[in-house]
Amino acid sequence: MKTHTKTDLPVSQIRRYLEPGPVVLVSSAWKGETNIMTMGWHTVMEFVPSLIGCVIARSNYTHQLVKKSKECVINVPTAEWVDTVAEIGNCSGAALDKFATFKLTAAKAEQVDAPLIDECYANFECRIVDARLVKQYDFFIFEVVKAHVAATPKYPQTLHYRGDGSFMVSGKNISRRGLFEPEILAQG
Amino acid sequence: MKTHTKTDLPVSQIRRYLEPGPVVLVSSAWKGETNIMTMGWHTVMEFVPSLIGCVIARSNYTHQLVKKSKECVINVPTAEWVDTVAEIGNCSGAALDKFATFKLTAAKAEQVDAPLIDECYANFECRIVDARLVKQYDFFIFEVVKAHVAATPKYPQTLHYRGDGSFMVSGKNISRRGLFEPEILAQG
Repeated sequence: MKTHTKTDLPVSQIRRYLEPGPVVLVSSAWKGETNIMTMGWHTVMEFVPSLIGCVIARSNYTHQLVKKSKECVINVPTAEWVDTVAEIGNCSGAALDKFATFKLTAAKAEQVDAPLIDECYANFECRIVDARLVKQYDFFIFEVVKAHVAATPKYPQTLHYRGDGSFMVSGKNISRRGLFEPEILAQG
Repeated sequence: MKTHTKTDLPVSQIRRYLEPGPVVLVSSAWKGETNIMTMGWHTVMEFVPSLIGCVIARSNYTHQLVKKSKECVINVPTAEWVDTVAEIGNCSGAALDKFATFKLTAAKAEQVDAPLIDECYANFECRIVDARLVKQYDFFIFEVVKAHVAATPKYPQTLHYRGDGSFMVSGKNISRRGLFEPEILAQG
């Protein structure tokens, strides 16, 4: 399937991609091994520095790779990838190479060793900045150190997991810009 | 505007409402004062206990009410409320009574003193269980102690904030249940 032509995005603006709540693919690498995980439990935590908090359960092979490398890439797939997203979330990288199995392209990142998933619409290179809550909740706080996003379309269809094997696909866009205060718009 | 007939939902199943990433309204109360805040930075953190992590910035009046009462209600509005959601997010409860200003109905919760917003499609009563990250990130971890949801429709239209005054409205639903492992479906 096609890949996207991407441009750099200021890392303070990633909320535009993640705050709507899409399911994402987390790519990781450690000592020559790579993995991909489907993740739905994430939130933006700050604009500057650009922070994302997320749960990567220890039952996932990715948990170990991220803990050891202290890095990952958060990739946003579009809706056409729904089968791949579901399948990646239902098998373990301990047993197979997910890039090869799912015929995804591992592209070189700039700031981290974990690979970008080239077919994804947006790729956010991340480094762990706070692991205080990993032991109790498997909750990692990452700083986004580099962001790559497709130039078009402006609003691609994304997948949003509802549980029970179902996904919501993002729908239409409505602006209420006129109701917003300038200082809130200035944040992003 | 109409309110919804609601039923109890097992608290372990709230991911079905929050994981897709809707913007929510946080209601709070302390010493006779109430407030409402629009919030987009939240994530599910665990099924059992039912945990939600979220950022309630200290610049919001709600931050103080929640910190003092150690409680809140997370309410999920449907798309018809877009103007109210935008307006609530662009004024401060320090200066006005948001329930009165926006003609919203404060209904009595069962487990907490903060009121439910009756017009919202789902209401999750929450208590703080971990405040370790409040000082550094304004990040609260709540346990959902009671969940009320509208019986119909199964998939209402929800609002998902994109930044810059724009909202995505939830679109169609697609099931890939057949691709899921039984143990993953069993989680919710």
